[in-house]
Amino acid sequence: MKILLIGANGTIGSAVATELAQRHDVVHIGRSSGDFQVDISDSASIRRLFAQTGRFDALVCAAGNVTFAPLAEMTEESFALGLQDKLMGQVNLLLIGREFINDGGSFTFTSGILNRDPIRAGASASLVNGAIDAFVRAAAIELPRGIRVNSISPTVLVEAMEGYAPYFRGFKPVPAADVALAYAKSVEGLQTGQTYLVG
Amino acid sequence: MKILLIGANGTIGSAVATELAQRHDVVHIGRSSGDFQVDISDSASIRRLFAQTGRFDALVCAAGNVTFAPLAEMTEESFALGLQDKLMGQVNLLLIGREFINDGGSFTFTSGILNRDPIRAGASASLVNGAIDAFVRAAAIELPRGIRVNSISPTVLVEAMEGYAPYFRGFKPVPAADVALAYAKSVEGLQTGQTYLVG
Repeated sequence: MKILLIGANGTIGSAVATELAQRHDVVHIGRSSGDFQVDISDSASIRRLFAQTGRFDALVCAAGNVTFAPLAEMTEESFALGLQDKLMGQVNLLLIGREFINDGGSFTFTSGILNRDPIRAGASASLVNGAIDAFVRAAAIELPRGIRVNSISPTVLVEAMEGYAPYFRGFKPVPAADVALAYAKSVEGLQTGQTYLVG
Repeated sequence: MKILLIGANGTIGSAVATELAQRHDVVHIGRSSGDFQVDISDSASIRRLFAQTGRFDALVCAAGNVTFAPLAEMTEESFALGLQDKLMGQVNLLLIGREFINDGGSFTFTSGILNRDPIRAGASASLVNGAIDAFVRAAAIELPRGIRVNSISPTVLVEAMEGYAPYFRGFKPVPAADVALAYAKSVEGLQTGQTYLVG
């Protein structure tokens, strides 16, 4: 399979690349690194990406930014990044990418644990993750040509605990390599409309 | 209690007004009807509303618009209404309204069944409902002064089946009066961070 991997240079993305490259042709895509570049918050940038990559069999997005801030300090503007980048960025990868995906192809998006198990300063992340998991469930039933869509919802990563530990006290972190297995299940399996929980 | 009821003239709102007015002072708020008017998609309009209403004990929002369209016809723009109106409208009611709510007060928002049980043409509604339920769960743990927040997630209403039946084949509709009970549970109970499913 030809697999487009967005966020290939990140902690999750690197592990997904290692897992999938054993069996597939993985195209590395990043904001500023990789074979191709994209800013998922900009639908014009997404269109340019697909014009460069051409047709593909699977797309994995392990990228997406949100604002972390105490609720007391949040305003409407604090939610804009998450809505435009992690949420609509991934929605637009499907809305635009479906023109380029082969029959039976799949989209695999990244949400995260915070809509199930919230933490301080995480309101925007929770909102966005809940939206992604819900979008996946709904979009799956309307996609044509055997195209599938799933999301992966990991807990905090072992590799990220150095910076994130103060926000995730009591959470049992999982290795990125374990999270990468869920992406393989989505890409190489046949289920659709699923959210795979890891951790 | 002084309860601000947004969408008081709607199918759900009218039933909530009937339920809560038996025991409380209900302020009717609508887009163009009621004691006061608000456009929840416009944060300046929300600010003007609270300047008019003054302090309150509970806010119920039974309003919010999203675009219904087949996924095949949806673009980025198809999601904008739901994000700005039903989703950020309700988020902004909390972000702005918390300055005006009394200690121990509550916010009660409206999501809906489609993030749990999707239908054709409902991708934006599903996304928004999932985001609202997740936001409520996260915001609840950070709110000060005993302030609470919940969402109500009803299935299709008996009263709405005349227009909506073709989209909701096989769904068992519930009377708006039953849905109104969930709003009373949220406003008059003590739980927070909950999504009350009705139907």
